[in-house]
Amino acid sequence: MILTVTLNAALDVTYSVPALVEGASHRVDEVHTRAGGKGVNVARVLHDFGYDVLATGLAGGASGDRLRADLDSAGVCHAFGAVAGDSRRTVTVVSEATGEATVLNEPGPVISGPEWQAFLSHFADLVADADLVVCSGSLPPGLPHGAYGQLCEAATAQHAETFLDAQGTDLLAALAAGPALVKPNRDELLATVGGDDLWAGAARLRELGAHSVVASLGANGMLALTPDGAWRATPGAALTGNPTGAGDAAVAALAAGHVEGTDWPERLRRAVAWSAAAVRSPYAGHVDPSIAAHLRADVALKETHDSDIDW
Amino acid sequence: MILTVTLNAALDVTYSVPALVEGASHRVDEVHTRAGGKGVNVARVLHDFGYDVLATGLAGGASGDRLRADLDSAGVCHAFGAVAGDSRRTVTVVSEATGEATVLNEPGPVISGPEWQAFLSHFADLVADADLVVCSGSLPPGLPHGAYGQLCEAATAQHAETFLDAQGTDLLAALAAGPALVKPNRDELLATVGGDDLWAGAARLRELGAHSVVASLGANGMLALTPDGAWRATPGAALTGNPTGAGDAAVAALAAGHVEGTDWPERLRRAVAWSAAAVRSPYAGHVDPSIAAHLRADVALKETHDSDIDW
Repeated sequence: MILTVTLNAALDVTYSVPALVEGASHRVDEVHTRAGGKGVNVARVLHDFGYDVLATGLAGGASGDRLRADLDSAGVCHAFGAVAGDSRRTVTVVSEATGEATVLNEPGPVISGPEWQAFLSHFADLVADADLVVCSGSLPPGLPHGAYGQLCEAATAQHAETFLDAQGTDLLAALAAGPALVKPNRDELLATVGGDDLWAGAARLRELGAHSVVASLGANGMLALTPDGAWRATPGAALTGNPTGAGDAAVAALAAGHVEGTDWPERLRRAVAWSAAAVRSPYAGHVDPSIAAHLRADVALKETHDSDIDW
Repeated sequence: MILTVTLNAALDVTYSVPALVEGASHRVDEVHTRAGGKGVNVARVLHDFGYDVLATGLAGGASGDRLRADLDSAGVCHAFGAVAGDSRRTVTVVSEATGEATVLNEPGPVISGPEWQAFLSHFADLVADADLVVCSGSLPPGLPHGAYGQLCEAATAQHAETFLDAQGTDLLAALAAGPALVKPNRDELLATVGGDDLWAGAARLRELGAHSVVASLGANGMLALTPDGAWRATPGAALTGNPTGAGDAAVAALAAGHVEGTDWPERLRRAVAWSAAAVRSPYAGHVDPSIAAHLRADVALKETHDSDIDW
């Protein structure tokens, strides 16, 4: 079983408007509400592809109730820890005129020390049945920067491996616990380690404890540094659409490949294809399998070395 | 007692962002939540000035619970009818860079026939103690265009008068019931009756049944056509700020003047001053009494005729 962890789970609300005009009052024609947060998106994609997945994390209040109800209706198994605060909302305003998605992310509820301790106990129960733990997204206010490191250590103690999609101090503080894979995007990676050399930055994350590093590069695909070698994977064509959730689809593909033990070239082809298919979807956390299969055939893969990289 | 009616009550959510950039993802630093909807704003202003006011309307779901809780904490008496749907949210995004407020209005829950019938019965109980009923804002989906007319007739049957801040068919359908006052803004008035002649449009609303018409003209003040004469009231200086809720503050002032029986010039001076003071407030439905008193002294008032008007 793959256990996804979303500590700052969200209710994703999408507003469709004819056009977004700063300073104007807009009548929203359509409101679409959906369980969200990066780990929830990963769980949804894995569920849609038939993998055994359980979504956990922290959820509370009326937004938390709606989040759970949405996962119920989608058939995604979940076991979130309860918190007193109301889970955050993310509001995405989609302009029908430009197609642009403008996203507003609330900070999320403040998590108390006892709530975090209760979640660690809950997590220890869940991880006993997990092969892989996938932790994604920012930490809500109140949690220590070392939160992901604590989860990684608890997983290791029960023979589960950990993927981590995070950035900055939250990511750095978890590396000593030895996550199997970390997946920052290009900007997140450079902001986390400093400098402007992507290869050197990814190598630095491995030195600090990550077994593998997959950096997502948007329309330019991915760079993977692993114990088995390094690869660059690029999609067949530039895609337009909603990039929200594309990174989550990539993580889902990498998690699927990890539990199946497929080789790295195959994992990366799938990750680029699922990510590209997610861009084509209007909602985060959805990958159309037939589109993904079609896009997979066009992914270019190249074993690479630092001297090959020209960003 | 003044009874305010907000059939499409809202939870007003304000997001502060450094700048609003279409297509970008924004981290919201601060989330401010508050009971809203035009009639709720009217009730809040009247309460703050010490008037005996009760807020009713329709509210439901988690947003409805939070709306009621916010009114409790503000000390505003309320007796909303319950509905099964979740009350709408309005999201206002305030850019710290430009000061502009960008508003996104959800449509609101669909109200069923039995829910509306239950509210009419609830309203009949409440209006028995009311001197004046103030109905404000758009109707939620599911209600008949004649909804405000029904409320106006029910109020008249119990010797209460009615103010109506609405537009279009919702307004037109209520005129035959003889509201004491209607307050469209300039654009609403012209859109409701057609043409581009404000005086003729206001006169038309009186012919159709409104006893008095006060058209709010933004920074240009107000035009009032009443049984006692017509006046133009203009603020002393152009104001910058958040215009959301300025019309509601004007309605509150007109309602206060109505129940006190003050003359029209006095009512209009107060309406322009409260409205201008509301523009200075960062949140809808708040008027600082000392600012209002200061601005009141500068309001210019002129008895007027159609030939005087130069728009």
